[in-house]
Amino acid sequence: MTDTTTHFGILGLGKMGGNMARRLASKSISIALFDQDAALTESLASEIKAVTAASLADMVSKLAKPRVLWMMLPAGDITESTLAQLQALLQAGDTIVDGANSNYKDSVRRAAAAQALGFNYMDAGVSGGVHGLANGYCLMVGGNDAALAAVQPYLEALAPAADTGWLHAGPAGAGHFTKMIHNGIEYGMMAALAEGLSLIKAKKEFDIDLAAVTELWRHGSVVRSWLLDLTADTLKADQSLDAIKAHVPDSGEGRWTVNESIEQGVPTPVMTMALMSRFASQGADDYASKLLAKMRQGFGGHAITKAS
Amino acid sequence: MTDTTTHFGILGLGKMGGNMARRLASKSISIALFDQDAALTESLASEIKAVTAASLADMVSKLAKPRVLWMMLPAGDITESTLAQLQALLQAGDTIVDGANSNYKDSVRRAAAAQALGFNYMDAGVSGGVHGLANGYCLMVGGNDAALAAVQPYLEALAPAADTGWLHAGPAGAGHFTKMIHNGIEYGMMAALAEGLSLIKAKKEFDIDLAAVTELWRHGSVVRSWLLDLTADTLKADQSLDAIKAHVPDSGEGRWTVNESIEQGVPTPVMTMALMSRFASQGADDYASKLLAKMRQGFGGHAITKAS
Repeated sequence: MTDTTTHFGILGLGKMGGNMARRLASKSISIALFDQDAALTESLASEIKAVTAASLADMVSKLAKPRVLWMMLPAGDITESTLAQLQALLQAGDTIVDGANSNYKDSVRRAAAAQALGFNYMDAGVSGGVHGLANGYCLMVGGNDAALAAVQPYLEALAPAADTGWLHAGPAGAGHFTKMIHNGIEYGMMAALAEGLSLIKAKKEFDIDLAAVTELWRHGSVVRSWLLDLTADTLKADQSLDAIKAHVPDSGEGRWTVNESIEQGVPTPVMTMALMSRFASQGADDYASKLLAKMRQGFGGHAITKAS
Repeated sequence: MTDTTTHFGILGLGKMGGNMARRLASKSISIALFDQDAALTESLASEIKAVTAASLADMVSKLAKPRVLWMMLPAGDITESTLAQLQALLQAGDTIVDGANSNYKDSVRRAAAAQALGFNYMDAGVSGGVHGLANGYCLMVGGNDAALAAVQPYLEALAPAADTGWLHAGPAGAGHFTKMIHNGIEYGMMAALAEGLSLIKAKKEFDIDLAAVTELWRHGSVVRSWLLDLTADTLKADQSLDAIKAHVPDSGEGRWTVNESIEQGVPTPVMTMALMSRFASQGADDYASKLLAKMRQGFGGHAITKAS
């Protein structure tokens, strides 16, 4: 039997999706949940008193029209295949939201395809990480006015306040585009903080307490920021970092930002270097370093260090 | 006649020094003022009910022992010559504070020289800009315990709170060193924001409102920061920036940070690129660009653009 009061379903109950569901439920919005992990679906539904779905088809059957299906899935194949399944299940006037960190070009293409089938489509870039549950999420959305009208009540509940923290950035793709750039900026800001603090750490003769410095900067300095707040917390717990491998993954948006820079012919040296530094930390410059060592040996007889 | 209640004099009443004097006076701390511009000295003293000095010697004669002389002068020659004059005027036990953005190596040298003469010496890096008056300054100080004991009451008044926003970072030089790195980080963070926003601006097909995006990011996003707050204010007033020349000066600390990176052999590619981008904006890569254009013409017959 269809629940006539539940219009909104969330697909994917990972760190982001699960907490977004909690935030919506905490605002007394009736929602339905689906995750490939049925136990996770049941457990969260029990916690927040939500409708459960055992499949995409079950989800669609349990939602009242007009439906809003919000996907919080990994960008790429899973999002693509889920979207294809939804398009076979939904009806004209229903709305699909992609809340993943999808490439904005995929979102432009998917929105056009969905709209041709009579669906509303919205791309939503979501920032706020695990702190979004308590503080609200920062939401950048793209799509036409019909999509916005369908989704706006949920945006207002997910954001820090109804009129703050969400933005209809522009047409389809503009949400994920804005989120992509946001993440590119984040790469640069994080790298600047990390590089500067590593120079302080390396200055043995001053023996400066990094936890104290970052805590200090939180109060009245020009670099005060949420990333600094997080960094100060990390360094208070442990500033040796001895237990951490010097390896930084990257998850797509940094690369797309630099690709965008190349397509536009607009220089972004800082964001690009932040990305390249991550690649280096992943060992991707090891071959180049070995080759440079061999060149130095070749032209100058400089010693090389054998791999152990 | 010596004012027995005034121990603290501030030298240099520019944007920073003037507002620091105002903040101290607002906390009922009795201070004396000196600036090369006598009219400025008189005007500020009248505003905040401070003692005026017509010269360094007059300043020293008007302060009760032990004296604290806080220099808020441009780093370099003026600071150096003022310090030399002060050392001839002060007495053992007096304290000199350099609140300028001096090179930390100068501060190490000056502290050793001052201490050899019996003075306390403190290097104080001050962040907070024109907003420090209202919010308090972020102060990074270096020096021995005697210098700290002499200066601490003033640090507590200048900071956002007595126990927050100032840090005895380490021995002489550690204050300016920490401030130097702070500014290097600031270069990187500013460049990341500017680069990302320029990519959004260049994306004509989305026509995204930069003022709305930066205001949005202030609420719940990962890049929220004081620099973003300032950027949002700027863009609300004008996002065309048509009236601004694309020229960014640099004032020393960015260069010193990169020099430090080179001395330590610790890579700082993001902060370095932020500095190099400023040099480029200053036209310092014009010759290289001209030469590249000529090379392309030479090997490929590509057209060059004549200077107009």
